[in-house]
Amino acid sequence: MCELLAMSANTPTDLCFSFTGLRRRGGEAGPHGDGWGIAFYEGRGVRVFHDPAASARSRIAEMIESHPIKSEVAVGHIRQANVGRVALENTHPFIRELWGRYWTFAHNGQVAGFAARPGTYRPVGETDSEHIFCDLLNRIRDELAPDVDDATLLATLVAAAGEYAQRGVFNLLLSNGDWLFTFCSTRMTAITRRAPFGPARLRDADVAVDFEAETTPSDVVSVITTEPLTSDERWDTYQPGEWRVWQQGEITARGTVPVPELAHPTGD
Amino acid sequence: MCELLAMSANTPTDLCFSFTGLRRRGGEAGPHGDGWGIAFYEGRGVRVFHDPAASARSRIAEMIESHPIKSEVAVGHIRQANVGRVALENTHPFIRELWGRYWTFAHNGQVAGFAARPGTYRPVGETDSEHIFCDLLNRIRDELAPDVDDATLLATLVAAAGEYAQRGVFNLLLSNGDWLFTFCSTRMTAITRRAPFGPARLRDADVAVDFEAETTPSDVVSVITTEPLTSDERWDTYQPGEWRVWQQGEITARGTVPVPELAHPTGD
Repeated sequence: MCELLAMSANTPTDLCFSFTGLRRRGGEAGPHGDGWGIAFYEGRGVRVFHDPAASARSRIAEMIESHPIKSEVAVGHIRQANVGRVALENTHPFIRELWGRYWTFAHNGQVAGFAARPGTYRPVGETDSEHIFCDLLNRIRDELAPDVDDATLLATLVAAAGEYAQRGVFNLLLSNGDWLFTFCSTRMTAITRRAPFGPARLRDADVAVDFEAETTPSDVVSVITTEPLTSDERWDTYQPGEWRVWQQGEITARGTVPVPELAHPTGD
Repeated sequence: MCELLAMSANTPTDLCFSFTGLRRRGGEAGPHGDGWGIAFYEGRGVRVFHDPAASARSRIAEMIESHPIKSEVAVGHIRQANVGRVALENTHPFIRELWGRYWTFAHNGQVAGFAARPGTYRPVGETDSEHIFCDLLNRIRDELAPDVDDATLLATLVAAAGEYAQRGVFNLLLSNGDWLFTFCSTRMTAITRRAPFGPARLRDADVAVDFEAETTPSDVVSVITTEPLTSDERWDTYQPGEWRVWQQGEITARGTVPVPELAHPTGD
């Protein structure tokens, strides 16, 4: 089972605290020792860090934990390989350009044997996840006009996510740097922090933070992840089939589609 | 004038020594304080580091200098902005997926007012460089069948590079992780290191290395850059209009096309 981590904020915010918690699950507190990656948007640009090494022992992860990279949208993933070798090209998040924006995609779950429809985008690695990402982008190019309005795009994203979830476990983070689309097939939870800010303590590491000291009263920062990262805050768990769109730290659209009940979710 | 740095090797090799020299030119020994980036291929995968901060003062650059990332192909760039703001999305190398491989592109020079032809690939930022990259990829998709043989692809790359160089200064590094295509409009030089290996000393920093202690007798490692990085080795300078393809540290194809003489090359 892999772990997902995303952030949506109304002001450039670093993710050091949450990343510290998630990172411990990569080969230390959890079994996810098969690489990790994270994308930080800054305006239209994006920095993506990928490392096939376990995040708990990664020098690059150490730098990200200690070097605040401020971003309004971030998309991260820690991998436990079950489809595709442990290799750089199989490490999430995957990235492609569409309509002049960088789109990033991170997936928790498994959709066995999935092959992307033919089209512009082709997988570089071997994961079902990257095949789904390419399939989704090819579908968007096939079905929608370039630069279509957000509502039309969202309808396609929801329909596609619902279909992928019929075929396996499909917990999804997807962003173009402007919006963050999240879809829960089996596991997803979120927290929105805003004034009055309080303290929080990580579950996976002996680290606490007082957000009030690090924020201004107008800040709104949401963290979306597969399992709650803190032990003393109230997380808002998604229902299976629930999707939410995040912008500037707030939910701007949400809904639910039917998904099959899965007795034994497994994950990549 | 920006600086380019690439490597082609027949065994995974780190670029710490050369990067140490180049990095000093980013806001310390040189005027290139407007960001930097570097892509390291590992098989089909690639890690790309981008930073809009001056490389001489960048924490990420410090980590790359001290943390050996072994690669067979690397493509790097240090920027002095003259077209496009100092921003993450304007930082080279640019990256796109084509035919199931990640292509990376770094450009030194300026091709004023260049606009990419319409097509699949669109620029995310504002630089003439990214417009040229998208134009090149759109041209390849327009003119060539998918997965065309290397000789046919190369003919298109050479023709396109020659045309871009008619319109401005166009020194180019382009790779898909398998081959490295280099084109010299005004400035490009290279060195191939192989047994017997010797010592070398950087021009821009008080650092020397004894390659014999770090290599095996069968290693072949070539470094391609806009200006020689060492003071005590013999670099092989490209002629204006000269292109070379590098694979596994060796030149596998080369040639020359006519380019205009430019009195005052300027660069991005």
